Amino acid sequence: MLKYQQIAEEIEKYIEENALQQGDKLPVLETLMTHFEVSKSTITKSLDLLEKKGVVFQVRGSGIFVRRHKRKGYISLLSNQGFKKDLEDYKITSEVIELEVRKPTQEAAHNLNISLDDEVYYVKRVRYIQEQTLCLEESYYNKSIVPYLNNEIVTESIFNYIKEGLGLKVGFSDIYLHMDKLSEEEAAYLGLENGAPKLLVESIFHLTNGQPFNFSKVTYNYQQSQFFIQANSHFS
Amino acid sequence: MLKYQQIAEEIEKYIEENALQQGDKLPVLETLMTHFEVSKSTITKSLDLLEKKGVVFQVRGSGIFVRRHKRKGYISLLSNQGFKKDLEDYKITSEVIELEVRKPTQEAAHNLNISLDDEVYYVKRVRYIQEQTLCLEESYYNKSIVPYLNNEIVTESIFNYIKEGLGLKVGFSDIYLHMDKLSEEEAAYLGLENGAPKLLVESIFHLTNGQPFNFSKVTYNYQQSQFFIQANSHFS
Repeated sequence: MLKYQQIAEEIEKYIEENALQQGDKLPVLETLMTHFEVSKSTITKSLDLLEKKGVVFQVRGSGIFVRRHKRKGYISLLSNQGFKKDLEDYKITSEVIELEVRKPTQEAAHNLNISLDDEVYYVKRVRYIQEQTLCLEESYYNKSIVPYLNNEIVTESIFNYIKEGLGLKVGFSDIYLHMDKLSEEEAAYLGLENGAPKLLVESIFHLTNGQPFNFSKVTYNYQQSQFFIQANSHFS
Repeated sequence: MLKYQQIAEEIEKYIEENALQQGDKLPVLETLMTHFEVSKSTITKSLDLLEKKGVVFQVRGSGIFVRRHKRKGYISLLSNQGFKKDLEDYKITSEVIELEVRKPTQEAAHNLNISLDDEVYYVKRVRYIQEQTLCLEESYYNKSIVPYLNNEIVTESIFNYIKEGLGLKVGFSDIYLHMDKLSEEEAAYLGLENGAPKLLVESIFHLTNGQPFNFSKVTYNYQQSQFFIQANSHFS
């Protein structure tokens, strides 16, 4: 972790520990520089990172302020940590339905930018929150990037393994949301009635070099899941 | 608009017009500097902005690359332009059901950070895409920030009016998603059957100074709406 990332983490921890609220002002730049014993450019980079992450907002000529804390129990649609992190106060478990090396579907090949002859790890699992079904997940990993998975890894956090076990750098992701009604099979896995509301979240995760390594389709239990997004002003 | 924002727009237009694909490499920094006749710091700021917006990704030591174009017909959940911009190839219209000055609900007051005695503009409208219902929207505007609205404004784009008519600077937003089943009233407005899948998107929009000015609850027609998000790597 780089210095500015480390300082950013410390500022985030400070906000957390002091239970600062939306609109609370942070100390001025000079005070932060002195406190953390870093240069102005480092502290500026830390604050920019925190702004991107939605932890603070900066008002020109006025200062740095805390953004409102996210509501508890919501899953971040922008995080690529997997939702274990958002739901750390809850018990999340996984049941692996299928795990095998196979040829990709046409859809998976297209989204992973590989050919139909390439190989993928296919993972199908049901995830639970506090013993209730949270989602049904079908996921395709480009095997030339993720050469090995086993039951133990996919029962725990696959992304942790990818980052820490394989040392890969996870970059940007494209996320698509669709609503529909649950099919009979999906309803059975989620323990809901056939035709119940369905939210399908498709994600394509890329390495920092732009190569897509994972395409996943996650169908959520509408009674157990809610999501949040913190959007920044650079889109205005 | 600042210089670097203007250059960013031009680069985006260039990508659009030349139909560049995900992974296509942009010219190196020096070439862009010469072409646009700007300094390195300006071009760097332009590219940072484009990266935040999900238009390009930068690979250290390797260059700047195009991110995949968003799928057509998807609504961006990160944009605060309203979805007119995402759906510009489609005909979007609005029918105003209610427009009045009133006291906020407890929920609206809480989200707008005002008291129950303050006044809000309440707007309820149904929006249509190609003559089909797209969503039912209930929206609360802090009247001390948005002092005037009328039927013509709320039939068109309220956000355009806020930005161009009132000269306000729209900043960050917090977005919450919930799934449920449509109530009888919602189903009637959307022309769907009672109990059909419901996606409720709650948004709190802030000015760049951090003041919330709009709280809205939008219920989407699940047959007509799909969403995309471009997430960046700073969350990893």
